[in-house]
Amino acid sequence: MITKDDIRVAAQRIAPYIRTTPVIQLEAGWFDVPGDTFLKLESLQVTGSFKPRGAFNRLLSEPIPPAGIIAASGGNHGIAVAYAAQKLGVRAEIYVPSLATALKRKMLTDLGAQVVVAGNTYVEALAASEARAAESGALNVHAFDNAATVAGQGTIAIELDAQLPDIDTVLVSVGGGGFIGGIAAWFSGRVKVVAVEPKNCPTLNRALQARVPVDVETGGIAADSLGCRRIGKVPFSVLLPAVSDSVLVSDEQIRDAQRVLWEKLRIGSEPGGATAFAALVSGAYVRSPGEKIAVVICGGNADPASFA
Amino acid sequence: MITKDDIRVAAQRIAPYIRTTPVIQLEAGWFDVPGDTFLKLESLQVTGSFKPRGAFNRLLSEPIPPAGIIAASGGNHGIAVAYAAQKLGVRAEIYVPSLATALKRKMLTDLGAQVVVAGNTYVEALAASEARAAESGALNVHAFDNAATVAGQGTIAIELDAQLPDIDTVLVSVGGGGFIGGIAAWFSGRVKVVAVEPKNCPTLNRALQARVPVDVETGGIAADSLGCRRIGKVPFSVLLPAVSDSVLVSDEQIRDAQRVLWEKLRIGSEPGGATAFAALVSGAYVRSPGEKIAVVICGGNADPASFA
Repeated sequence: MITKDDIRVAAQRIAPYIRTTPVIQLEAGWFDVPGDTFLKLESLQVTGSFKPRGAFNRLLSEPIPPAGIIAASGGNHGIAVAYAAQKLGVRAEIYVPSLATALKRKMLTDLGAQVVVAGNTYVEALAASEARAAESGALNVHAFDNAATVAGQGTIAIELDAQLPDIDTVLVSVGGGGFIGGIAAWFSGRVKVVAVEPKNCPTLNRALQARVPVDVETGGIAADSLGCRRIGKVPFSVLLPAVSDSVLVSDEQIRDAQRVLWEKLRIGSEPGGATAFAALVSGAYVRSPGEKIAVVICGGNADPASFA
Repeated sequence: MITKDDIRVAAQRIAPYIRTTPVIQLEAGWFDVPGDTFLKLESLQVTGSFKPRGAFNRLLSEPIPPAGIIAASGGNHGIAVAYAAQKLGVRAEIYVPSLATALKRKMLTDLGAQVVVAGNTYVEALAASEARAAESGALNVHAFDNAATVAGQGTIAIELDAQLPDIDTVLVSVGGGGFIGGIAAWFSGRVKVVAVEPKNCPTLNRALQARVPVDVETGGIAADSLGCRRIGKVPFSVLLPAVSDSVLVSDEQIRDAQRVLWEKLRIGSEPGGATAFAALVSGAYVRSPGEKIAVVICGGNADPASFA
C-alpha cells in the first residue's frame, strides 16, 4: 500500500530537485457544460514530464550500488532517470526500444546517460535491462511498478491540493499506472480520479474490467509514452478501488487536444501529455454541471511540428 | 503621469477578463553568476501576449462610440483589441501592415474582427487607421501611447509583486514602451527595471541617449512585435527617470533564447517574447552576484517551427 505519509516524505525528499508546476484556469465558455476547469502544467516540470518525481524518490530511497543504475524506457522515464542520476552523481544506463523517438534519445545522451537500443518494444528493452542489471549489479529502476516510484509521482497531488483545495475531479492519463496510482493514493475518497487512455493503449481499462492486470495490445500516436502491455501490480492495488471512471479517447481526439493546447493556450504537449485533456475537449468525459475539474498536462516532449 | 493607483484601478477593472499568469523558477546552475532567476510566463496570457491588459483597460475607461473601435497593429495589440472587443460585444476594425505574419492575421479574423491591410509599416497602417477613425467616428485604440493602456500593462507588475515580493531586477523587452512603462510606473525606485531591445529595433535605447523620443530604423526577426519607429511620449515620460539599464541583443541571440526556452523548458515563445530572456542567456545583461532577477516572457504567438 502507498500511504499519504509515504507521499509526504517523498515530497520532502525530492523538493530540492523538482519544480512546483503552475496551474492555469480556463475562461468560462470553453465547454458546453458549465464548471471551472484548471490545467496543471506538469509539462513544465524539469525534463518536460512528471517522471522526475518518481525517479528522484526511488534513487533517494535506497543505496545506489557502485555499478550505478539501469532503466528501461521508451522515453520520459529514461530521461528523468538520466537527469536524476546526473544531479546525484550516479552512473546511468538507459535501455530504449527502437520505437523511442529520436528527440528523446538525444535528450538521454545530452544528460550523460549511456543509451542502449534493445528490442522493438518496451517489454523487450525491459528484459534486456534486467539481464544486464543482474550481470553488473546495477540498480534497476522500474518505470512504474515500485512503491517508491508511485509515492514520488503522487507528490503532484500534494501540490494540486494546495493550489486548488476544492476540486471535485482530476483527469489523468495512464501508461503503466504509476502516475495515476500516486495521485489516487493521495486523493482516495476525497476527489474523483478519472483515468484517460488512448483507445489504442487501453491497459488500465481492460484491467479494471478483468479486476486483475491483463496483457493488452498497444499502439498509436501516444504509444511512446503510454504504450504499456500490462498495468503495474503496485499501482493496480491502489487503482482498483480508487479510480472513479475509465475513459478512452481516439488518436484523432488526442491530436486535436494537442492542437487546442497550442492554438488557444500556447502550451506545447506530447500526445500522452494531452490525452487527459482530450477526454474533456472531445466530450468523452461527461462533466456534471458545476463540476470543478483539474486536468494534468503531464508531458511536453514533442517535436513542435506535431502540434503546430 | 501614471500612478500606482491608476494601475490598481486597472487591475480591478480587467480582472474578469485576464489570467494571472504563472511564474517558474530556474534551477541553480543555469548561469555562471549565481542568483535566483524567475520567468513570468505572460505568453500564457489570453491571446498569447500581455496586450489584453492594456486593451481591456482602455476599452473599460471611456464610452465606446456606435462605430466601435479601430486599432493599427502588426499583430499582438490587434489580436488583444479584437479579443477585448469580442468579449465586450463591440465592433472592431484592425489595420495591419503587410509585414504582419499570416498566423496573426488569421487570429484576427478568427476573433471576428474586420482586417484591413494598409501599407508596409506600422506607421502607414496607423495613419490609415486614424484617417478611417476620423471618418467613421470609431475610437482609435493606440497600441502604447495612451495612459489607460500603459496603466493596464502595468497590472502585470502587481502580480509579479505578489508572486515574487523580493526581486531585485525585472528584465522586460520593449517595442513602443507601453509595457515597460506600466511596469516602471509600478516598480519605480523599488525594483531595477532593465529594458531589452533587439539591436535591429533600438527605439528606447536611442531615445534614452537623446533624452527625447527620436525616430529609428527597425527590422530583424522581432520587428513584427517590437519594431516601433519612435517610443511613445506617454510611456517615455515614465521611462526616462525609471529605466536602470538599456541592453541590446542580436537577432541570433533572440533565436537562441527561443530555442533554449523550448528545449530546456518546453515554453513556446515568439522573438519579441524571448528578447528579454536573450539578454540573460547571451550575457548581454551582466548580473551582480546574488541578484534576484525576474524575466518577463511576454508573447508566444509564433509558428512552433521557428523555435524547434
